[in-house]
Amino acid sequence: MEYRKIKGDDDELQDDHDAASDLESLKGKSHTVASSNIALATLGGERTNWKRKGVVTCALTILTSSQAILIVWSKRAGKYEYSVTTANFLVETLKCALSLLALTRIWKNDGVTDDNRLSTTYDEVKVFPIPAALYLFKNLLQYYIFAYVDAPGYQILKNLNIISTGVLYRIILKKKLSEIQWAGFILLCCGCTTAQLNSNSDRVLQTSLPGWIMAIIMALLSGFAGVYTEAIIKKRPSRNINVQNFWLYVFGMAFNAVAIVIQDFDAVTNKGFFHGYSFITVVMILNHALSGIAVSMVMKYADNIVKVYSTSVAMLLTAVVSVFLFNFHLSLAFFLGSTVVSVSVYLHSAGKLR
Amino acid sequence: MEYRKIKGDDDELQDDHDAASDLESLKGKSHTVASSNIALATLGGERTNWKRKGVVTCALTILTSSQAILIVWSKRAGKYEYSVTTANFLVETLKCALSLLALTRIWKNDGVTDDNRLSTTYDEVKVFPIPAALYLFKNLLQYYIFAYVDAPGYQILKNLNIISTGVLYRIILKKKLSEIQWAGFILLCCGCTTAQLNSNSDRVLQTSLPGWIMAIIMALLSGFAGVYTEAIIKKRPSRNINVQNFWLYVFGMAFNAVAIVIQDFDAVTNKGFFHGYSFITVVMILNHALSGIAVSMVMKYADNIVKVYSTSVAMLLTAVVSVFLFNFHLSLAFFLGSTVVSVSVYLHSAGKLR
Repeated sequence: MEYRKIKGDDDELQDDHDAASDLESLKGKSHTVASSNIALATLGGERTNWKRKGVVTCALTILTSSQAILIVWSKRAGKYEYSVTTANFLVETLKCALSLLALTRIWKNDGVTDDNRLSTTYDEVKVFPIPAALYLFKNLLQYYIFAYVDAPGYQILKNLNIISTGVLYRIILKKKLSEIQWAGFILLCCGCTTAQLNSNSDRVLQTSLPGWIMAIIMALLSGFAGVYTEAIIKKRPSRNINVQNFWLYVFGMAFNAVAIVIQDFDAVTNKGFFHGYSFITVVMILNHALSGIAVSMVMKYADNIVKVYSTSVAMLLTAVVSVFLFNFHLSLAFFLGSTVVSVSVYLHSAGKLR
Repeated sequence: MEYRKIKGDDDELQDDHDAASDLESLKGKSHTVASSNIALATLGGERTNWKRKGVVTCALTILTSSQAILIVWSKRAGKYEYSVTTANFLVETLKCALSLLALTRIWKNDGVTDDNRLSTTYDEVKVFPIPAALYLFKNLLQYYIFAYVDAPGYQILKNLNIISTGVLYRIILKKKLSEIQWAGFILLCCGCTTAQLNSNSDRVLQTSLPGWIMAIIMALLSGFAGVYTEAIIKKRPSRNINVQNFWLYVFGMAFNAVAIVIQDFDAVTNKGFFHGYSFITVVMILNHALSGIAVSMVMKYADNIVKVYSTSVAMLLTAVVSVFLFNFHLSLAFFLGSTVVSVSVYLHSAGKLR
């Protein structure tokens, strides 16, 4: 079995981890993080920021890599035939519930303040549906791109997300990367693609023009949704992340409900909402919810660039872990790609401006 | 026909362009370069150095890439069955003759000085046989490594030369590269290997331990010979490069004569020295002699790192030119590898110390 397969299968629960998770956040722990933040604001605030950034980044990396492993595991356990849209809906619902849970604990400890109250203004909330709508549109497009590209080819083209995220991060958030960091970002894209190369990869070069255009549009939608989420979350830095997440996830639920109606209405009405669910499905939904929350945390305390690095490294970790778990065979291309990605991570840190 | 083939065929005339060329230098032009150097020493000396460095580097890149193309061309023209050792001997002889030709012109213009006289001391000349001996030893080893690795696998393993050159350059010449430049060097090795990947490349991972050890020894021999040549040439900066080349090539001739006796004695005595030579063989010998001289020039006016970059970029240029000349097909791996090599070239220049 080849490594690339994991990534291929990943599409069954969510179009990719981006789709699952780029609109979200919160976790039991975030309460501690948020309140300890105020206490330590003056004393070693910089160190706390770094620590928090490190914790959420590691959490995202571990959760993302375990995602792909869970999917392979569930495949081994036998075919599952649940509808993907209902699972996505449940992921959003779970994230929403976890956000509320964290908020109730915060209200009990700190009382209700302007920053952590759930009620909102039209001005604050009007932008929250946008990322969810972008993802819905992208997921719908995905059904059409397979007319032009096969699944392994699509996995390769998805690496365009890395470049689109970098470019939109620069344009929309107006944050600068140094030239060395840009070099690192190009290498990240090359390294991830190299690691996924197999003997059929060259077919992707024969993709027709409409296929390329759709792949680029999808990369732009995905990158735009990620960058826009960061913009929303960072616009009000003092606003509690759990409130921001709650509103993101509420719209996530709504748009996924629309997706159920569009794509799986017949299946759900005939076979039931939970048809085909197993224990492993539940574990996967839990995992997706937690990684979704980790993505939001990374958006709040780090940025989209860190998120892209984190999920790329997770992809490589997954492959290495799979060698031990499933006797996967690592290709020379994988070693070369991993080395390029590692150098890229180094360059991102070595190339920091100032 | 796949791109990698060019590199594979390259072995027929010389073990690789390193082997052909790492011990040498001079060209009709170098006379002009050398004498104009003195005139401009004070006025814009720095600019002249850069210009000369650029000219020799470009010459090396163009000559190296045309080498591989000539080899493919000669293959198309029909099988050639000359003995490789006689061709190597003639390359050394031609380089020797060109060095002498350049020297006679210099003597006529500038007179005989301490720096350009051909006679030498034991102290100066004693180190000159070492690179030639190292290459001879490496070329002999090459006959044994094919018991452990196939030819395409050997092409992949030869990229270890890049790393060995960098490490020995640091250790022997005690020159420092910045961390960014080291990152670039690792990427150069990964990029070149990626560009050569094909569906059978993974076999190289099954190479047995003796195969790996031999590949590493050969990389070290090749790297050491290159770095040692640079050390010899740079030890006496004011000494005329043509004299230094003359002595390098005289020993090159001697050691290649030994190789003829060891490997092709029967063929040469039975069929004659020039058996199997054609017009294209002569052109190839001329090309190898000129690229050998270009390598020496790069050693004198730039360094081994520039040489490695130059020959790596030449490899990529060859592939691109071959698309137009021979309808070669470029793989996705080639695009990815080329991008990584390009970023690496940028990092080498952006990462300069100070």
